[in-house]
Amino acid sequence: MKNYILKIECKDQNGLLNKISHCISKNSMNIDKNDEFVDNSIEPARFYMRSEISGSIIKENFLEELKNDLPSDAKITLSEGEKKRIVVLGTKEHHCLGDLLIRDKFNEINAIIEAVISNYNDLKDLTDRFNIPYHFITHENKDREIHEDEVIKMIEAYNPDYIVLAKYMRILTPKFVEKFEGKIINIHHSFLPAFIGANPYKQAFERGVKIIGATSHFVNNDLDEGPIIAQEIINVDHTYDAKAMRQAGREAEKAALARALKFVFDDKVFVYKNKTIILK
Amino acid sequence: MKNYILKIECKDQNGLLNKISHCISKNSMNIDKNDEFVDNSIEPARFYMRSEISGSIIKENFLEELKNDLPSDAKITLSEGEKKRIVVLGTKEHHCLGDLLIRDKFNEINAIIEAVISNYNDLKDLTDRFNIPYHFITHENKDREIHEDEVIKMIEAYNPDYIVLAKYMRILTPKFVEKFEGKIINIHHSFLPAFIGANPYKQAFERGVKIIGATSHFVNNDLDEGPIIAQEIINVDHTYDAKAMRQAGREAEKAALARALKFVFDDKVFVYKNKTIILK
Amino acid sequence: MKNYILKIECKDQNGLLNKISHCISKNSMNIDKNDEFVDNSIEPARFYMRSEISGSIIKENFLEELKNDLPSDAKITLSEGEKKRIVVLGTKEHHCLGDLLIRDKFNEINAIIEAVISNYNDLKDLTDRFNIPYHFITHENKDREIHEDEVIKMIEAYNPDYIVLAKYMRILTPKFVEKFEGKIINIHHSFLPAFIGANPYKQAFERGVKIIGATSHFVNNDLDEGPIIAQEIINVDHTYDAKAMRQAGREAEKAALARALKFVFDDKVFVYKNKTIILK
Amino acid sequence: MKNYILKIECKDQNGLLNKISHCISKNSMNIDKNDEFVDNSIEPARFYMRSEISGSIIKENFLEELKNDLPSDAKITLSEGEKKRIVVLGTKEHHCLGDLLIRDKFNEINAIIEAVISNYNDLKDLTDRFNIPYHFITHENKDREIHEDEVIKMIEAYNPDYIVLAKYMRILTPKFVEKFEGKIINIHHSFLPAFIGANPYKQAFERGVKIIGATSHFVNNDLDEGPIIAQEIINVDHTYDAKAMRQAGREAEKAALARALKFVFDDKVFVYKNKTIILK
Repeated sequence: MKNYILKIECKDQNGLLNKISHCISKNSMNIDKNDEFVDNSIEPARFYMRSEISGSIIKENFLEELKNDLPSDAKITLSEGEKKRIVVLGTKEHHCLGDLLIRDKFNEINAIIEAVISNYNDLKDLTDRFNIPYHFITHENKDREIHEDEVIKMIEAYNPDYIVLAKYMRILTPKFVEKFEGKIINIHHSFLPAFIGANPYKQAFERGVKIIGATSHFVNNDLDEGPIIAQEIINVDHTYDAKAMRQAGREAEKAALARALKFVFDDKVFVYKNKTIILK
Repeated sequence: MKNYILKIECKDQNGLLNKISHCISKNSMNIDKNDEFVDNSIEPARFYMRSEISGSIIKENFLEELKNDLPSDAKITLSEGEKKRIVVLGTKEHHCLGDLLIRDKFNEINAIIEAVISNYNDLKDLTDRFNIPYHFITHENKDREIHEDEVIKMIEAYNPDYIVLAKYMRILTPKFVEKFEGKIINIHHSFLPAFIGANPYKQAFERGVKIIGATSHFVNNDLDEGPIIAQEIINVDHTYDAKAMRQAGREAEKAALARALKFVFDDKVFVYKNKTIILK
Repeated sequence: MKNYILKIECKDQNGLLNKISHCISKNSMNIDKNDEFVDNSIEPARFYMRSEISGSIIKENFLEELKNDLPSDAKITLSEGEKKRIVVLGTKEHHCLGDLLIRDKFNEINAIIEAVISNYNDLKDLTDRFNIPYHFITHENKDREIHEDEVIKMIEAYNPDYIVLAKYMRILTPKFVEKFEGKIINIHHSFLPAFIGANPYKQAFERGVKIIGATSHFVNNDLDEGPIIAQEIINVDHTYDAKAMRQAGREAEKAALARALKFVFDDKVFVYKNKTIILK
Repeated sequence: MKNYILKIECKDQNGLLNKISHCISKNSMNIDKNDEFVDNSIEPARFYMRSEISGSIIKENFLEELKNDLPSDAKITLSEGEKKRIVVLGTKEHHCLGDLLIRDKFNEINAIIEAVISNYNDLKDLTDRFNIPYHFITHENKDREIHEDEVIKMIEAYNPDYIVLAKYMRILTPKFVEKFEGKIINIHHSFLPAFIGANPYKQAFERGVKIIGATSHFVNNDLDEGPIIAQEIINVDHTYDAKAMRQAGREAEKAALARALKFVFDDKVFVYKNKTIILK
């Protein structure tokens, strides 16, 4: 008797839910929790489903049967909710990394931090306190590609499920993004798509906004254009200078990243083109 | 070809989703949208499902078939999403009524305001402007029961689907509540269960809270204890006196009530004991 | 014995608060409430102060004395908190206008709606119900300048303190903006500076954001770039299509506009370059 | 040339701001930032002022002069914004302590954690990683008074400015509260005054609320009745069981406590009876 998370996405057609629930029943599994979504805004419409199911199946047979019942484009995953193995990339800012280290230590997220990689040494002391490997790979006096290749090599040594950019302040090359497609999660220090580009808090300060935000998203090749997973906001006013906005923003960044990671690591997120569908 | 909203609740058992989706398929209906919830916190666990389905069925046959497939305690409703017919009860405060009149006029909620009843005449002028009957039934020099009987009689003349207490500042008797069981929706001027009882903004002011709120709930016989549908909050600080808190609170009241009514009138709300389950 | 709101802004210098409070005391006025701000982010630093003061002064003498005590660039206003006279411009969308009409009728904002002007006739029926003049000035078959001139002429007939663009979906010419400089307040249907330009909810939907917003701002010649007064947000998710986002956004629009207007009409807002300072 | 934070509270009288700003000017100090509040809801009205001032004064002389100018009940403090020395009390829950340890290490709050005291050993490993003394003082097999006396003795050894109850799940005796009057800050796991007492998340779950919260407050002898400093909320729905509510609540607890501590440690909080006035 085991618990599984079943995720299915495919083009929509009549009777899908019936076929799937029938297949689950036939395999003597029970649906403990279920969430679906049909995106009718695209053509053809697209079907998403996430089920928490329980029972004792022969995994391969079940998946095979399911596949036969579904449209040929169906993506099916059946996970046992294992902890995700992650590598965190940072630069100098501590707040997101610190938050993740605490959550990791106390099992607040369904993941294990395998290593921290940074182009600075500033966060080594913090990371060491949690007995997690810290790899300082300087970018100084190196071509961007060479530095990135070193980072890629180090990441590959851990073969992680996800790469978390916890305020990694460097632009990734298409090579990097393609290599880890769908596995890179970033926290952007603005309420995207506002203030794309450098120094968003300075931009926000200069624009005189009354709310600032943070956005956690998957990274794709269009910088700041990847599928958004979670956003958070903080109210500010004229008494906030750019520095105070940045400090307030840190709270939004931590919260948005933690929430996004929880969704992803709990197998709740589907990605289609530049959007996420989050089933619960 | 018609669109229906199907709501089902019953005690949970294995294979329910399969049975239901099979029955829908068999009747040549398609599921356009579906949301379920199984409440495992109670014993026996309880199953809730809301589906938007489309097709051309013989309604009675379909419901009969469905009933045969489900546990004997199943409550099944199949609605075509008709506008709900409502009666609004008020006293002197205009803000919730004003908001509803505008929404009614511009079809922002799936309902028709049949009449407004009040124990004061203050809101007649506003209501008249929207060509809606206004019944002033004073409570002065009357026993509570006699006044309420007059109100009940007037409500019954409209036979509404729901009764909305839009700042109706009178306590209802058990007789009233039983007569319209499950049909009365109130907006309470506090973040329940904080500040139960009279004058919650004064209480909130005296307690020195930093957030105030409003709660929309179904009314049952335990005053302020009915199932909560929606809550809203507003940040306040030491500069707010009781009057300013009340004014700020009005914004929360309007928002919470409007949101709750939208859920109810769109057939999204299930009530079980003192809780609501809202499927979307 | 009268109550005044005193607003002062000027370049900062040592001892300003001392000079001002001394002058107030000398004139036998008491400070009931006071808020200041010094913007040190600009060079030279800039001083803002808003006081609620009471007493019986000869207004001209007091202002003269104050002026002599302050830097030569000082802007001083002394208001008795009179209701502002406003003209509302709309197009077809009712929600912001409806909200303002209710607030106007019940004195929830410190203003009187003198007239509503629209390039469509859709909102006439609503406006008529509140006995407020409605001027339908079609833009059809007219040059932009000619239409705008007609609108300007109509506005000037009312000589309002402020012009509220309550979803007025037309771009204003520089001529219009200059003529009513500092007097035009807009509600923009996005969380500025995100989604500048047309159809922001469609943009937001296509970008897959998880939060949408609305921004109320003074209008200047840079479209969507005027000083922001208030912003509001609403959480959304993948189940919201563009239409549902627009409907949710309406709630944010109403709330942001109402809050901004309250600040402005209560004489709480200072504008400097593209920012607002809101003293309470 | 030094920077000071000046805090004044006293019963209100005419011309106070004039007297104070005159005294500051006379001592060749400049006011860089200023915030006042007069509480007219009580009799006699009460005046609060917080100024950031700069210059080079003889502190004692200045305070003496100021005292002579003000009502005899005036409380005046002049701080140089020194870091507050704090002791943290915990039990078993890590999240607030973890958050504070990270903030302490990276100077995000204006305080130094001198020690952590707990009646369990669970948080020792975490605390050790930050090289902060951890005192495990078990309550087992001890009278409440005896255990508390040991805790008091340990706290006194550090003579802290503030004691932070970071999920310290024990009720304090009046003796404890009086000994550290005005110095104890608690995080309560509910949106006070809702769900006073034990197990608020279970209460919240059973009540079926749609928003949960957390409250940081000074501790006085009325349990859960001390002056509120900051509150935070999180939206929940029917899918949250009591455990999920508790986990969501942790985020609110961390945020509310961190915000409250920032206010207190930045000398922004005044306490009068059961309320706080927070000047910025």
